[in-house]
Amino acid sequence: MVKNSSPSKRKSIPEPTIARLPRYLRSFAQFSQSNQLVISSKELAAVSDINPAQVRKDLAYFGQFGQRGVGYDVKTLDEKMRGILGLNKSWRLALIGAGHLGTALLQYGGFAKAGFKVEAAFDVDPSKVGWELEGVKIWGTPAIRQVVREKKIEIGVIAVPASQAQRVADDLVDAGIRAILNFAPCALSVPKSVLVRGVDLASELEHLTYFLEKSSKSDKTKNSG
Amino acid sequence: MVKNSSPSKRKSIPEPTIARLPRYLRSFAQFSQSNQLVISSKELAAVSDINPAQVRKDLAYFGQFGQRGVGYDVKTLDEKMRGILGLNKSWRLALIGAGHLGTALLQYGGFAKAGFKVEAAFDVDPSKVGWELEGVKIWGTPAIRQVVREKKIEIGVIAVPASQAQRVADDLVDAGIRAILNFAPCALSVPKSVLVRGVDLASELEHLTYFLEKSSKSDKTKNSG
Repeated sequence: MVKNSSPSKRKSIPEPTIARLPRYLRSFAQFSQSNQLVISSKELAAVSDINPAQVRKDLAYFGQFGQRGVGYDVKTLDEKMRGILGLNKSWRLALIGAGHLGTALLQYGGFAKAGFKVEAAFDVDPSKVGWELEGVKIWGTPAIRQVVREKKIEIGVIAVPASQAQRVADDLVDAGIRAILNFAPCALSVPKSVLVRGVDLASELEHLTYFLEKSSKSDKTKNSG
Repeated sequence: MVKNSSPSKRKSIPEPTIARLPRYLRSFAQFSQSNQLVISSKELAAVSDINPAQVRKDLAYFGQFGQRGVGYDVKTLDEKMRGILGLNKSWRLALIGAGHLGTALLQYGGFAKAGFKVEAAFDVDPSKVGWELEGVKIWGTPAIRQVVREKKIEIGVIAVPASQAQRVADDLVDAGIRAILNFAPCALSVPKSVLVRGVDLASELEHLTYFLEKSSKSDKTKNSG
């Protein structure tokens, strides 16, 4: 047992902190746009909508960048967090499903800006195959395994109906994909070595209804009190 | 100062637990489909992909439903969580932006199933105004304030480009909306009484790259060790 055998074995960062890093990165972009090079944890907290104590705790994982009374250097923090998230390189994506959602994802400016490049799109509809969508060639779904391997694609984005999602996921896994972003409203069964993140659009709404329900209850309490 | 003055003032549930409730609800649906009426925290943990200790902690907020050696009653938990999330009623939505993303959202089966009804859609494009999309009438964006008020809409879903998002949010707030789901890749400035949840598609991908980056580093460590 050798401790600290590799430089990459630093203090591991907890999952909830990792999940907040993209929000910090968005905030840094805003500070940079307004030419603010140094920020306080309080400012970062306000823009990121995260409480200040949590921000200080999160930033502590990135070493001693903060100087009391001076603040944090935006560029250093930004580079450090990008490094942790693997964003100082570009990533090769495949999009499965070239319907409305797939098209919206291709048009979505945020991906390219963040270093994500869609290398191929796939669809079951033969009338779409062979065409290009936002400069990306559309293949038939039977080609997934071959094209994903040939183009060395690293991440699969699933934007097909729930009924087709598992089959598509199986093909991606067979082709060696280890990370999947799933927009289909269903759970996927994949080997443990593959990470799936599901974007559940309804569950985002359910979080809002909790807030509405809670505040309407507190209004009623106030009115009746 | 009167303690426990109202029955609604129970032990408040922490935000991260609330955020996990939709995932539990999805799992309950799966158990119900396979006619499993009683579950263990371990089973729920496996299907929801949340660690068992966390599941037990979360469930503790919903009272003593679990019986040691027997498990939790799926239906009771499901109803309890739906009540907390305000899902035992239906909610009235407005969709702003009837492009590819907006259309994908209207076609997305998950909303209706979860009790969300899109009552009106809005778009800047005059050629779309007056038409219907998936049975929902499209209005011009200048009509937002009036239609949202008239139809007593409670939640606004923003699916317009970033450059138009703030203006649309202002209109929604003016119309009395207190909850917004924002798909535009930008921050919105709204009064404190309004809750905005941003769905940042790029940040979902950034979570995946963290995983890929970490596992490729550990592969290298293994290979060189």
